[in-house]
Amino acid sequence: MKVLILAGGSGTRLWPLSRKRFPKQFIKLFENERSLFQKTFNRSLKLVSLDDIYILTNKDYKYLVQNQIDELGYNFNKDNILLEPKSKNTLPAIYYGVDIVTKKEEDNIVVFPSDHLIEDNHKFIEIIKSSTKLAKKYIITFGIKPNKPKTGYGYISPGEKTINGFFVKEFKEKPDRDTAKQFIESGYLWNSGIFMFNSNIFKNEVKEHAFNIYSIFQKYDDIKDVFKKIESISIDYGLLEKTSNITVVPVDLEWNDLGDFDSFYNVFQTDQDNNITDNKDILINSKNTLIKSNSPKIVAGINIKDLIVIDTDDALLICNKGSSQKVKDVVKILSKNDDQRINYHLEDQRPWGKYKVLEEKDTSKVKRITVLPGKRLSYQLHKYRKEHWYIVKGNAKVTIDDEIFNLKAGESVFIKEEQKHRVENNGDEILEFIEIQTGSYLEEDDIIRFDDDFDR
Amino acid sequence: MKVLILAGGSGTRLWPLSRKRFPKQFIKLFENERSLFQKTFNRSLKLVSLDDIYILTNKDYKYLVQNQIDELGYNFNKDNILLEPKSKNTLPAIYYGVDIVTKKEEDNIVVFPSDHLIEDNHKFIEIIKSSTKLAKKYIITFGIKPNKPKTGYGYISPGEKTINGFFVKEFKEKPDRDTAKQFIESGYLWNSGIFMFNSNIFKNEVKEHAFNIYSIFQKYDDIKDVFKKIESISIDYGLLEKTSNITVVPVDLEWNDLGDFDSFYNVFQTDQDNNITDNKDILINSKNTLIKSNSPKIVAGINIKDLIVIDTDDALLICNKGSSQKVKDVVKILSKNDDQRINYHLEDQRPWGKYKVLEEKDTSKVKRITVLPGKRLSYQLHKYRKEHWYIVKGNAKVTIDDEIFNLKAGESVFIKEEQKHRVENNGDEILEFIEIQTGSYLEEDDIIRFDDDFDR
Repeated sequence: MKVLILAGGSGTRLWPLSRKRFPKQFIKLFENERSLFQKTFNRSLKLVSLDDIYILTNKDYKYLVQNQIDELGYNFNKDNILLEPKSKNTLPAIYYGVDIVTKKEEDNIVVFPSDHLIEDNHKFIEIIKSSTKLAKKYIITFGIKPNKPKTGYGYISPGEKTINGFFVKEFKEKPDRDTAKQFIESGYLWNSGIFMFNSNIFKNEVKEHAFNIYSIFQKYDDIKDVFKKIESISIDYGLLEKTSNITVVPVDLEWNDLGDFDSFYNVFQTDQDNNITDNKDILINSKNTLIKSNSPKIVAGINIKDLIVIDTDDALLICNKGSSQKVKDVVKILSKNDDQRINYHLEDQRPWGKYKVLEEKDTSKVKRITVLPGKRLSYQLHKYRKEHWYIVKGNAKVTIDDEIFNLKAGESVFIKEEQKHRVENNGDEILEFIEIQTGSYLEEDDIIRFDDDFDR
Repeated sequence: MKVLILAGGSGTRLWPLSRKRFPKQFIKLFENERSLFQKTFNRSLKLVSLDDIYILTNKDYKYLVQNQIDELGYNFNKDNILLEPKSKNTLPAIYYGVDIVTKKEEDNIVVFPSDHLIEDNHKFIEIIKSSTKLAKKYIITFGIKPNKPKTGYGYISPGEKTINGFFVKEFKEKPDRDTAKQFIESGYLWNSGIFMFNSNIFKNEVKEHAFNIYSIFQKYDDIKDVFKKIESISIDYGLLEKTSNITVVPVDLEWNDLGDFDSFYNVFQTDQDNNITDNKDILINSKNTLIKSNSPKIVAGINIKDLIVIDTDDALLICNKGSSQKVKDVVKILSKNDDQRINYHLEDQRPWGKYKVLEEKDTSKVKRITVLPGKRLSYQLHKYRKEHWYIVKGNAKVTIDDEIFNLKAGESVFIKEEQKHRVENNGDEILEFIEIQTGSYLEEDDIIRFDDDFDR
């Protein structure tokens, strides 16, 4: 058995908490929490060994995946991180994953999305394990037993029983409230997007129902070419709704797609006034409110109710409960204005660590840069700005115009315009330094790199 | 005629916009606006010449007063800034001011609070000017013609006419709504706290009705001793409600004490949805809401109404409209926790300029420090932290362990623990530098100063 984790999604419905460069699956919802991706990874380890987990993501999130697995303490094989060259929805992505994973031999594949919240349930793992017989004959989708008539989810109508599952009679799109109630009464299940199948069965089904996709994978030199010309289509539309070899296995567990901040509110423990908030915050006569802000900032609420308050360093969202679907309209407006706050947080994760913009003014910018042990930034130069680095923590191996030297905490270095420079953490501890940029032009695109295939 | 501006108040009802170290009168409510203090100063200049304006404030706000007058472009005589050694409410403060201002000769004094919003009204200036005859006989309080039955204001009941005013029949405390309506019907006026009187009349009245206060000012060596032992009492309780030589001159203008964020909402121009907000913010289906945040942060509101949202770098207030009086309860809780956010903003104004904490972590702190031309910081040392300064703008004259040298933009210096150091702006432009502190203890109280009477 192999597990394929889908970690390439880039939703904006949790903006400003999520950004295109830092989507939902990587967010740590509250301090000391694991991200949804990390929870999915840990769940996968209950099914298979480390080497049998594969992550399907893209270039932008590769280092997020790596860093978050590193943080869990696993020495994960980088070859198991597969990169979609272009986002073409789930069917091409899953086919690509299955194709790579089973290059040597066919196997049973479990596909986990990584952006849903699933109760850590021993029974679910057992159900998956005991579904291998069914998976040898049919594509399995796991169906969650609904506890509420949710209008935001897709439903599955189970038909005739087979082995430990049911044939799928029909997939149903997001219903209205009354229809959702009828669905529940009729024993319909939520479509979780979690699949299991034998790789050959899957490939044959794609061959039969989505031949264009199948054929394009039969012979290619560069996967980039495949993704350039392949059709963008979901596994639901492209395959599951077409085939009759599709079964559903019911699972009874807490599941939430965290599709908006209202779902978000529903999955967390509330206090006696039905508020979700940090201890540091001060709420007076307030209820049914979700407050999330970056420590150490304090939030005070007075006589407020039914609000969602999401405060980040550069954007604050205040939304009436029940309206959080409209976050996408805010994102649309920002997108029209080419506002970078839909793409980046002020603190941005990088392959080599992370950086945070502490202050940005017309002619100066201050950053805190953190480099992981053994990692380095690319060898680069800037035309229009000079930089000054002051080491706050750890040890740095610095290269300036091909001269190499070491700096330790409390030491600093100047980098002039046009000087080639690089920093590397050659110690065992975190390297942290403050970078002060000055110049007439301080945008990130004033950079010439001298390492061609460097992880930026 | 002399003008005495009261600028020593330290309210907390506009927290987190106002802090003890940065009270209401100095806040610029919206960008490119003048502060209430600056508006009061400009109004005073329509009555008297620069040398006849006196500011009554305290040590903590002295440099705010200076900097904000500098910003208006006036070369103001520093001797005209009078410092209360201790806050003892308005009667002792005004007596002190009057006493100093009229040391040489008696004169008419106009007393302006600096924390109220007053429509810039030519007529008001004329009314004050034409009240000098009345001021020679009686204490004048200017009474605002009410336009709404406000419950948060004090009222004055005018009696018999005399010259261009009326004798005061009675002062009335904040009424309930029905009483306020009756007051308006009976021709009562709002108590504005703006006074005018001849200095001798005032002193005689204090002598008669508050002899303790009068006598203590008759002979003293050090004003600090006076304020140590003097009674704390307002001019209303201590004098105006006791004397019969008190008149009211009605004035018809827009006036608001900005006593809370609800008043705040009422004085600003709203948009078509009755919102007050910056252009940068995005409001969807939202109304009757006041949003104030520090640029460039963006605020997005979805389906919200009747909210007051005040976002600062380290604290966010969200308050239902009509409840903003309860801000004081939040401040009480913070005060109990000894939370410094009731005292300071992250950006703190200093006599020599200002500084802003860009990031504070366990063992490092980054500040942006701005020094005005010709100003310098105290000569000092720290026991537990070292500092690194990198000059971003301007020129610095630096002293380290009695060695003096110059630094210009793009240069830096290290200061070790226990090293005496000072920085001075010896150029004509603003000096701006980044200070990086590292060490085991980074609080502001790790400081030994070597200039005794230095403005900190």
